Amino acid sequence: MLAEIITIGDEILIGQIVDTNSAWMAGQLNNAGIRVKQISSVSDNREHILTALGEAAKRADMIFITGGLGPTKDDITKTTLAEYFGVGMVENKDALNNVLRIFERYNRPLLTVNKKQAEVPENCEVIINKNGTAPGMWFNEGGKVYVSMPGVPFEMMYMMEEEVIPKIKSLFKLPVIIHKTILTVGEGESFLAERIADIEDALPDYIKLAYLPKLGQVRLRLSGYGDDEAFLKDKINEFATKLIDRIGDFVVADEDIPLEKNILNFMEKRGLTLSVAESCTGGYISHLFTQHAGSSTVFYGGAVSYSYELKESILGVKHETLLQYGAVSEQTVKEMVEGALLNFKSDYAIAVTGIAGPGGGTADKPVGTVWIAAASAGKTAIKKFTFGSRRQQNIERSATSALFMLNTLLKEVEK
Amino acid sequence: MLAEIITIGDEILIGQIVDTNSAWMAGQLNNAGIRVKQISSVSDNREHILTALGEAAKRADMIFITGGLGPTKDDITKTTLAEYFGVGMVENKDALNNVLRIFERYNRPLLTVNKKQAEVPENCEVIINKNGTAPGMWFNEGGKVYVSMPGVPFEMMYMMEEEVIPKIKSLFKLPVIIHKTILTVGEGESFLAERIADIEDALPDYIKLAYLPKLGQVRLRLSGYGDDEAFLKDKINEFATKLIDRIGDFVVADEDIPLEKNILNFMEKRGLTLSVAESCTGGYISHLFTQHAGSSTVFYGGAVSYSYELKESILGVKHETLLQYGAVSEQTVKEMVEGALLNFKSDYAIAVTGIAGPGGGTADKPVGTVWIAAASAGKTAIKKFTFGSRRQQNIERSATSALFMLNTLLKEVEK
Repeated sequence: MLAEIITIGDEILIGQIVDTNSAWMAGQLNNAGIRVKQISSVSDNREHILTALGEAAKRADMIFITGGLGPTKDDITKTTLAEYFGVGMVENKDALNNVLRIFERYNRPLLTVNKKQAEVPENCEVIINKNGTAPGMWFNEGGKVYVSMPGVPFEMMYMMEEEVIPKIKSLFKLPVIIHKTILTVGEGESFLAERIADIEDALPDYIKLAYLPKLGQVRLRLSGYGDDEAFLKDKINEFATKLIDRIGDFVVADEDIPLEKNILNFMEKRGLTLSVAESCTGGYISHLFTQHAGSSTVFYGGAVSYSYELKESILGVKHETLLQYGAVSEQTVKEMVEGALLNFKSDYAIAVTGIAGPGGGTADKPVGTVWIAAASAGKTAIKKFTFGSRRQQNIERSATSALFMLNTLLKEVEK
Repeated sequence: MLAEIITIGDEILIGQIVDTNSAWMAGQLNNAGIRVKQISSVSDNREHILTALGEAAKRADMIFITGGLGPTKDDITKTTLAEYFGVGMVENKDALNNVLRIFERYNRPLLTVNKKQAEVPENCEVIINKNGTAPGMWFNEGGKVYVSMPGVPFEMMYMMEEEVIPKIKSLFKLPVIIHKTILTVGEGESFLAERIADIEDALPDYIKLAYLPKLGQVRLRLSGYGDDEAFLKDKINEFATKLIDRIGDFVVADEDIPLEKNILNFMEKRGLTLSVAESCTGGYISHLFTQHAGSSTVFYGGAVSYSYELKESILGVKHETLLQYGAVSEQTVKEMVEGALLNFKSDYAIAVTGIAGPGGGTADKPVGTVWIAAASAGKTAIKKFTFGSRRQQNIERSATSALFMLNTLLKEVEK
């Protein structure tokens, strides 16, 4: 079963928003055994939407569409779908009741444009939108399934999980797609590839290996396609084990989780706790940890100490240290990490101070200069990094490097 | 001038990564006066890449491609481009020197696969990759321009900014595209639309209006297309002023910036400072502020107080308050925000405590229960919210609501 995703909206094509819906939908479809052949983003333009629908229908069995269902004039997906199928529009009772329900809840008067949201192409089954006024739509036409959903992520997500995926599973017998990901840290893509070349060459044609590099990490993903789930799982695991044995110490996780989640799992198992002292990463490291459910068992929290004053008052960095060496220095990061351990009473701590840019650089401390420390009661590791000139990348690379250093320190627990 | 973007990689189609490259590239191209007609994500598959190239070339004048340039076997973009153009591969000296330079810098032995990265289709001009080993490629064929770049964001970004966009500007006379965005908070899309209907109807055909709703905010974007920059700017500004006058108090910014950046600008102008006390948002609000250059003038930092202990030690929340009312309560959030004002010595503070989920909910405090406070020395606003069951959305909605509350409090400065 092949699917395509079409996301509609000028805001995507001018780069005003990142299309995060497609990746989420693709993940859900894959888990259900549906391969996504192509993702296309097109403008709020009648001809363009019609062409995209036609092209997708030539390649795929199911077409998932998001966007363009709002009440305003630039939202033309619904009428364009009616035109594509050659049908008229009708008011749908359930959709209208849903609109009324939502307007009652918020105690707002109903406008004509809102009432129009209950109009749908007459050949569709309505998917009720519990979180908004725009109905979803399911079409069966010419042996293909078309599903149109709102572009607002949480409205779409709810519909996919509660309505669309269950309906697909009840209607079709789907093949099995199994992915297994191995997270490696500290070795380049080509060196990994050389090291595992013979294993890669021996892969059967129903298993594919992909390399996904990102900021010093490489994820290796095995994907198996077939009908026999147990067999496929065995085979994937067999090759995953071979890869893990061969790659050795560079492997940090044998599942598709980010490094910080792996650290949380490792620390939780051992009853260890963590706090942070963030300057130039400004809360980003805390956010990385706390986005994961259950992180509170390990992660106590910490300080975002952007100012000199907070470095002193929350972390106990000495005023003289800041004056003598500056906020971005080995001495300051050392006092920050030690202050976090002492004041926040965690087993481990990480501290980051640097110049994220674009301003604030000097000749001996250019933008991108970052000091990072990872520490436990017994040991402190400190390193200086020189990243580039881009603020967002300096923040991300600082965070990733801090995670690496903590990970290395934690590994010594095992030794 | 029309462009298309093709991003290549199975990892996009299985939803393992979000394609952020396209939005960034689309923004850059738009600024240069190039409209992006379509964005397509396709798999690492020869036939599929060939088809996507052919289709894009039918619709657009320029095709920008990212991904599939790594040294491993799943990376087939380069050879597929050679096949598409019907040419052979040659080793390029500059690209080889670049590979050698990078391997020398990291003091690693050069593998055959790395040397192969210097091989390119013989009809291309090489774009040197200062941040990696995979060369970019520029093709002029059949009156179209094709540019192939690595999928690693910072390698691609550097190439676009330093090489590709300047080259395009030197080669083509480009039309003008002007966008102007108005950020509104607190009024629904359809109510805004009704209120400005006559202004929207009076727009000339070279100016388009789009509504971009997101978590209680609606951005209104005017886009003008033409050749006469000064005329277009005047016209866009004329209509923007009409919209702003009509919408009144719901307008918070007349440029395309996120709400937190608008708050930073507002506070910086008035010499005001801010700190935060974050529990369930776990650093996310701090990250929102600190991602912006120059935020340190306003933002002192604050506490990520995930544990009871840190709420007490950093923020001074009373132990009895936590015991009697719980961490997620009006009393606790009040003490958190007051503690932030007192301990961090900022003019304004915001505090958030809640149950982000998926675990931790109870009958009277279900997952999604969040208390938020915004305060200055003279005034404290406190509100309870009941969001949904999704952790990531609860974090984002809490952060947005906290920004709204702070924004409202700040508006009173003006009155």
